[in-house]
Amino acid sequence: MKFVSAAAFVAFAFLAQPLAAQTDAPAPALSEQQQRTVDRLIDMALDDGLAWELLESLTTEIGPRLGGSEAEARARDWGVKKLKDLGFKNIRIETYEMPYWERVREEAEIVSPFPQKLAMTALGRSSATPEGGLTAEVVRFRTMAELAAAPETGLEGKIVFVDEPMARTQDGSGYGTAVRKRSMAAVEAGKRGAVASLIRSAGTDFHRNPHTGGGLRGQGATVVPAGALSNPDADQLARAIERADGPVTVKLNIQVRTEESVQSGNVVGEIPGETDELIVIGGHLDSWDLGTGAIDDGAGIAITTAAAKLVGDLRGKPKRTIRVVMWGAEEVGLYGARAYAEQHKDDLDRHILAGESDFGAGRIYRFDSGFGDETVAKAAPMQAALHRLAIASGPNVGTGGPDVGPIRRLGVPVFTLRQDGTDYFDLHHTPDDTLDKVDPSDIQQNVAAWAAVIYMASEMEGDFGRLPVASDE
Amino acid sequence: MKFVSAAAFVAFAFLAQPLAAQTDAPAPALSEQQQRTVDRLIDMALDDGLAWELLESLTTEIGPRLGGSEAEARARDWGVKKLKDLGFKNIRIETYEMPYWERVREEAEIVSPFPQKLAMTALGRSSATPEGGLTAEVVRFRTMAELAAAPETGLEGKIVFVDEPMARTQDGSGYGTAVRKRSMAAVEAGKRGAVASLIRSAGTDFHRNPHTGGGLRGQGATVVPAGALSNPDADQLARAIERADGPVTVKLNIQVRTEESVQSGNVVGEIPGETDELIVIGGHLDSWDLGTGAIDDGAGIAITTAAAKLVGDLRGKPKRTIRVVMWGAEEVGLYGARAYAEQHKDDLDRHILAGESDFGAGRIYRFDSGFGDETVAKAAPMQAALHRLAIASGPNVGTGGPDVGPIRRLGVPVFTLRQDGTDYFDLHHTPDDTLDKVDPSDIQQNVAAWAAVIYMASEMEGDFGRLPVASDE
Repeated sequence: MKFVSAAAFVAFAFLAQPLAAQTDAPAPALSEQQQRTVDRLIDMALDDGLAWELLESLTTEIGPRLGGSEAEARARDWGVKKLKDLGFKNIRIETYEMPYWERVREEAEIVSPFPQKLAMTALGRSSATPEGGLTAEVVRFRTMAELAAAPETGLEGKIVFVDEPMARTQDGSGYGTAVRKRSMAAVEAGKRGAVASLIRSAGTDFHRNPHTGGGLRGQGATVVPAGALSNPDADQLARAIERADGPVTVKLNIQVRTEESVQSGNVVGEIPGETDELIVIGGHLDSWDLGTGAIDDGAGIAITTAAAKLVGDLRGKPKRTIRVVMWGAEEVGLYGARAYAEQHKDDLDRHILAGESDFGAGRIYRFDSGFGDETVAKAAPMQAALHRLAIASGPNVGTGGPDVGPIRRLGVPVFTLRQDGTDYFDLHHTPDDTLDKVDPSDIQQNVAAWAAVIYMASEMEGDFGRLPVASDE
Repeated sequence: MKFVSAAAFVAFAFLAQPLAAQTDAPAPALSEQQQRTVDRLIDMALDDGLAWELLESLTTEIGPRLGGSEAEARARDWGVKKLKDLGFKNIRIETYEMPYWERVREEAEIVSPFPQKLAMTALGRSSATPEGGLTAEVVRFRTMAELAAAPETGLEGKIVFVDEPMARTQDGSGYGTAVRKRSMAAVEAGKRGAVASLIRSAGTDFHRNPHTGGGLRGQGATVVPAGALSNPDADQLARAIERADGPVTVKLNIQVRTEESVQSGNVVGEIPGETDELIVIGGHLDSWDLGTGAIDDGAGIAITTAAAKLVGDLRGKPKRTIRVVMWGAEEVGLYGARAYAEQHKDDLDRHILAGESDFGAGRIYRFDSGFGDETVAKAAPMQAALHRLAIASGPNVGTGGPDVGPIRRLGVPVFTLRQDGTDYFDLHHTPDDTLDKVDPSDIQQNVAAWAAVIYMASEMEGDFGRLPVASDE
């Protein structure tokens, strides 16, 4: 009710152009009215409880929602119902088929010389051990590089243990190295005749909740059974090896259930605009099975839905259509994102800008554009509008998030609202990813930034260029 | 090598008495040489790695060591070997018989309306559910008092859920209320015809590691199966109840194994003194089965053993004998402590002073005496010597720790070196009780205080009185 109509902005913007031309000054990127609207959106968001309500609802009423599972299907129904209740339009589930994997049983223990249980979780797509488990000597490698450089023989019948720790960083830059370890340890172990691989979890905490995560994406089962130890258990195994006079043997039992093909889907809803140009935002609806997916990625679902709702509540339609996508099956192999890119491949020129919220629930500290080179200047007014939220201006290196990766690689420009991830990998992919870890005021800051950015992206004149098409999609 | 002999102190103290009488001033409690020795013990301790080495060895090489288990027996052998290697004398295992309980399987899940797993652990001595588990509606009580005040009917066939939170305090004063909930929930539930009880863990953290702990000590199995939810899971169940339109049903499966009688034991070793008067210190050797018992109570074992070793390394014998006891089976019912009191009941007049370290690995912040009233003044010089370690002087309310409870109630005076427990109940009785949670320099501060106190208790003239014999031992 407090907002001027979007149509008025368009009229003003239209008027502004000739004036600018007359005075030879560049057209203002945002009219004064638009700037006031941005400020009001921010004010509203900082006092808005919708994102928290959505997050609490999703994590409580659905809880864990593994890609391809029956729980993920319930989450899709939840998403449809919420979007409907909130007044979104064109709500639908865009389905696709995917392979399914779930853990059935996972146990690890030191058998000798210091018998005791270890906290271990199977990595996604881990193959199974023989029923009842396998027992073998452990060989420790300090880093993934050390394993990759090891001779091709000498590990036959052994369990490989890659003990590489992960760096704690604000921007998550420790994750790349960690993912390499997580996805390659079983491959390198298998190459060398090992019977299983264990890694120190890709995580920065010291709780006995190991971090799961994907093995090799889209490449079938891991070569050998693949588990992750919690950081304290990795410490313990390393100490045991150090203190033992002879070999340390470990028993692993990993049992899994797989299906060749199950149905999953992306949930889509829209705030219709005056044009059919699209600003696409969202999060992923699936989570790993161990926690309730509050920070990964219930928060992204809640933040982007609440931000779109705020823009939808403005008087009049936005210029462009705001599309919220709740992507499916991200964790287990980006199945939803790849299906979206395939299903919308003839429609991508309508995709003006895209971004995903998928880095937890921490405060946003930087806006990075990922625009076509010729339109980079358009980031500046967007960034300026976010300064009151203590959000810094970043370079044109945004990647937009994992689920917009496939359409980005087909040319769609993106943006990244970078969240503080200092503590993200304490919780990521563990049972500890639960609602109590989220600060409601941090969520509100996120909603404010998203609402402001999508509103500006909707209203600004012209587009954000196109990105070079990547050959490796 | 740097220390004067204990015999010299005795001579000096003997000499000091008449001098004091001559001048009408009170006898100095510690000679200057003794004070110098105390300071040197503190200096040595702050630079000593023995306690850490012991703690690392125990938690790595033995790991979890449930009272009465084969692992606890291995821990006793570990204790004997370590005491021997360190030069202790009169090393022995004093055995006793006890009933045995262990968890075999524990699972909980919300069945409807929001199906998902819950992180739950069985409380010690929990009775088992029927094989395959039981499913029932949950009835929530905000506090234990609310359950205790509930009518005697109306809970037939239900699962009682006591959702009372625990206070975070430095001195552990939140634990009394928490223990009442932990031990009484199943009793009060059973009285009212409920089929099981669940409590919010007696813990202050927000990780999905529920806190186990004793049910009713020494009174057989709990009345109904008794579990504890982690704090995030208790939140989740409370939210589910709040959000559900109808009843919330939960499935619990707790399977246990018990034996009527197994052997356990206390490990005892001594630094022989010039007299057969005893200063008795120690920790408990057993731990709960979920963690490796680093803070509860490997730290106590390590601190007191290292402190006694430092005193034993002084030139000459201490005046009194320093006895280190590694009590067995504390967690599951104080079996070791009660056996010690029974086995030494004719010998207690030799027990001049006793204290246990059993409140984690945090820094000591206060010395509380628990002396006979007529000797309270003797605390002052001990406390003064600890001021350089940032240890405050407390009142004469020390209880000495759980394992000296039985001999305290038979009259033996005690002391408490109070440790900072602000974070203790984040880890206590969970899988997270592991070595990485301990700060080596905190351990050294503890060793320094213990070495100073036992040295002073050994050398001071006269005793510490006797405590009134309690009728309820």
